[in-house]
Amino acid sequence: MLSAKFFKKIGMKTFVLCFVFACCSFSGWAQNNDSMMVKKIVDEVLINGHSYNNLRKLCKDVGQRLSGSENFLKAVQLTSKMMKDAGADTVYLQECSIPHWVRGEKEKGEITFKNGKKYQLHLTALGNSVGTPQQGISSAKIIEVKSLSDIPKMANELKGNIVFLNIPMNPTYINTFRAYGESASSRTRGPSLAAKYGAIGALVRTLGVNINDIPHTGVTRYNDSFPKIPAVAISTNDAEILSKELKNNQVKSVWFFSGCKILPNVIGYNVVGEIRGSEFPKEIITVGGHLDSWDLAEGANDDGSGVVQSIEVLQTFKSLGIHPKRTIRAVLFADEEMTGGGSDAYLSNAITNKEHHIFGLESDAGGFSPRAFGFDASDEKMKTIEGWKPLFYPYGVYEFYRGGGGADIGPLKKIGATVAGLMPDSQRYFDIHHATTDVFENVSERELKLGAGVMAALIYLVSEYGI
Amino acid sequence: MLSAKFFKKIGMKTFVLCFVFACCSFSGWAQNNDSMMVKKIVDEVLINGHSYNNLRKLCKDVGQRLSGSENFLKAVQLTSKMMKDAGADTVYLQECSIPHWVRGEKEKGEITFKNGKKYQLHLTALGNSVGTPQQGISSAKIIEVKSLSDIPKMANELKGNIVFLNIPMNPTYINTFRAYGESASSRTRGPSLAAKYGAIGALVRTLGVNINDIPHTGVTRYNDSFPKIPAVAISTNDAEILSKELKNNQVKSVWFFSGCKILPNVIGYNVVGEIRGSEFPKEIITVGGHLDSWDLAEGANDDGSGVVQSIEVLQTFKSLGIHPKRTIRAVLFADEEMTGGGSDAYLSNAITNKEHHIFGLESDAGGFSPRAFGFDASDEKMKTIEGWKPLFYPYGVYEFYRGGGGADIGPLKKIGATVAGLMPDSQRYFDIHHATTDVFENVSERELKLGAGVMAALIYLVSEYGI
Repeated sequence: MLSAKFFKKIGMKTFVLCFVFACCSFSGWAQNNDSMMVKKIVDEVLINGHSYNNLRKLCKDVGQRLSGSENFLKAVQLTSKMMKDAGADTVYLQECSIPHWVRGEKEKGEITFKNGKKYQLHLTALGNSVGTPQQGISSAKIIEVKSLSDIPKMANELKGNIVFLNIPMNPTYINTFRAYGESASSRTRGPSLAAKYGAIGALVRTLGVNINDIPHTGVTRYNDSFPKIPAVAISTNDAEILSKELKNNQVKSVWFFSGCKILPNVIGYNVVGEIRGSEFPKEIITVGGHLDSWDLAEGANDDGSGVVQSIEVLQTFKSLGIHPKRTIRAVLFADEEMTGGGSDAYLSNAITNKEHHIFGLESDAGGFSPRAFGFDASDEKMKTIEGWKPLFYPYGVYEFYRGGGGADIGPLKKIGATVAGLMPDSQRYFDIHHATTDVFENVSERELKLGAGVMAALIYLVSEYGI
Repeated sequence: MLSAKFFKKIGMKTFVLCFVFACCSFSGWAQNNDSMMVKKIVDEVLINGHSYNNLRKLCKDVGQRLSGSENFLKAVQLTSKMMKDAGADTVYLQECSIPHWVRGEKEKGEITFKNGKKYQLHLTALGNSVGTPQQGISSAKIIEVKSLSDIPKMANELKGNIVFLNIPMNPTYINTFRAYGESASSRTRGPSLAAKYGAIGALVRTLGVNINDIPHTGVTRYNDSFPKIPAVAISTNDAEILSKELKNNQVKSVWFFSGCKILPNVIGYNVVGEIRGSEFPKEIITVGGHLDSWDLAEGANDDGSGVVQSIEVLQTFKSLGIHPKRTIRAVLFADEEMTGGGSDAYLSNAITNKEHHIFGLESDAGGFSPRAFGFDASDEKMKTIEGWKPLFYPYGVYEFYRGGGGADIGPLKKIGATVAGLMPDSQRYFDIHHATTDVFENVSERELKLGAGVMAALIYLVSEYGI
């Protein structure tokens, strides 16, 4: 460790620099006040915040919260109570229709090599996938696909065989979400597209950057015009092995079984907690994350962190006795992972009730150290927003970029809201995404709280000044 | 998770913006070339880097590497081999005198309350501390100290009693090293200062921001003019409990035992690996971390990460076939944690051999996502360095601040070198610092490699242009 004396020196210097920077960039009393309020808010979360303890409860008392599961309903109850405890004026549930997919009997699979040896695959059924027959499915020809655009040219080979969608995430992208964005269609659309051309099952390379044995699930979507084929993710390491052995012509056959089923939709709920605005109660600011998770772990970062951070925003206003001028709603959305049923319900309610939504902020990129906010805003609104940027620099948020909101909050743009997203450091996200590793122990208390703190500060500014 | 399509869009936008920014800020062919070289270097580490696998070996095949232990010598052997495998022209050991402190029989301690109940403390002996007698030490009066400056005023109370140094790290500092800098003297100087005024033993609040049961060790230093008293760290949670119960006047006594011993110094080694410069071989650039660790865990982040990142710098030059103009030395320092014996030896060798050291870079703040470099450089040199800053922005390094180097590299300033330090995100550092939690599993492959990548890029620029 670098010496204490040294850090005392540079720490102070950095702090003074940041403080001077934050102060100089503004003029006037109001903006100095903003700087002090932002500090007060972030300090409150770092010292007294409830988000980390709430996340522990959500992960350990409930655990996985798969859409349509009993656990999802338990999470609705628990987080409703958390909203009340946080001091929301009103807490209510918003009904919606959500999918009910069940994993069933544990999946398994293996490669048989031409020398007779077998290799047990590390695999997990994809969400929304159909299962295989009880005896599983197998094929002697495994058709490796490196790009979805190749599929239509491979109709002859695909027919009657298992497709192997081997589209790695690009490790050189520093924003790992960009790499995910480029490769995720292998999972979401790949199996159905291969089915169109006759494939009978799909092995999909896990969407993770590192090479290891942990398979990641996630939704696959069927086009109703084509047969629904069973689809599983295999680990990145297995994908490397399979690809190499196919190239070496050493693979005799691949077999896999999955026991999952798609059941009829059920009723789910968004959990909504509100602090009514004191001056402009009809101007609504939403802050949210999604309550559902995959079933392999606790959904600690996807999106337990967004859930507890959103509740923390309400908590912070109440703890500091801030009466927001505009109405603030924390919303825990149902069913982000499969069909967006919760987000649809929230939007359609807003339309039906002619609500005036001015701003929405989503946290669904993990509870890691915050680095940026993304905004989907008009040029003029972006000018106001840019003026706030120096307030966040001392807390490690150094970038305000164009483009924001996410799957749940993004749709509020349709009714005129400016939408935004918290963008934390993305290096670890795809280590835990949709995998057994997404547990409470992989969340850092300070990172989570720092994210909640800057979220609360941004919501404060919008509640104070509008947008 | 935010939708793939959305991230594809914003990822690309951010990338294009960063790229444009990086390109526009420069003019001329050479600087575009620099941008491309930096990308080539970082890409190489992210795709083919050895640092993560090397760290696994260091942590799992050797484990803790306490100064003076057999394991430290094993680590010298293992990392010498890694240096050779990385392609160093020359690998050699540099002898130095290092302390030999042993923990001995496991420490234990308890609070006895006035109601007769006992509470088992979570504690760990401080490094370099003497042990207690076999029966331990106890006192009925526990003297709580909130600031070292209070100690001289408390001579009457301290005499014959146990001192409780309860100086928390400030949780509102975003740079956690600043909080450490302000509080660390409670551990390094506090016990000896209390001994000056008659204290017989010391309980020191763990230097960690979060409240939990994990005690952290670390060096304490004795002033030879005062008695050497046994000193242990207690967990932050225990410190909160003890402080509360003292305030409530519920504590009957405290007892603790520690079995540690200070043995005579032994011979240790710095491990040095070098790539000789092709044009200016006498201009030396050092990049390093420290090889010793505390004994409670694997020293994965303190400072295994700095060790493997430094080796990765050499590896990257070799893998990409870059022949540096100036000589690059990766140095794994002995004994950073106790007396700085390795650093002293490196400096005195440099003086004896009249070496011309132009630059030194230290990585000893954890293998987390890089955010900044700190530089201790003249104003003029800082101008050159500032010109490189935009090259690092696309990799998340957005700040070049004044002040840099660390305990091992910092002393090179005395012989004219510009010294620098890698400053990664600091939120998690004091979760693992000097504690049982400093294990390989708490290091992220991408974060570690990204740090190594920007270090290699900075060393490349200095090797190319001098400073």
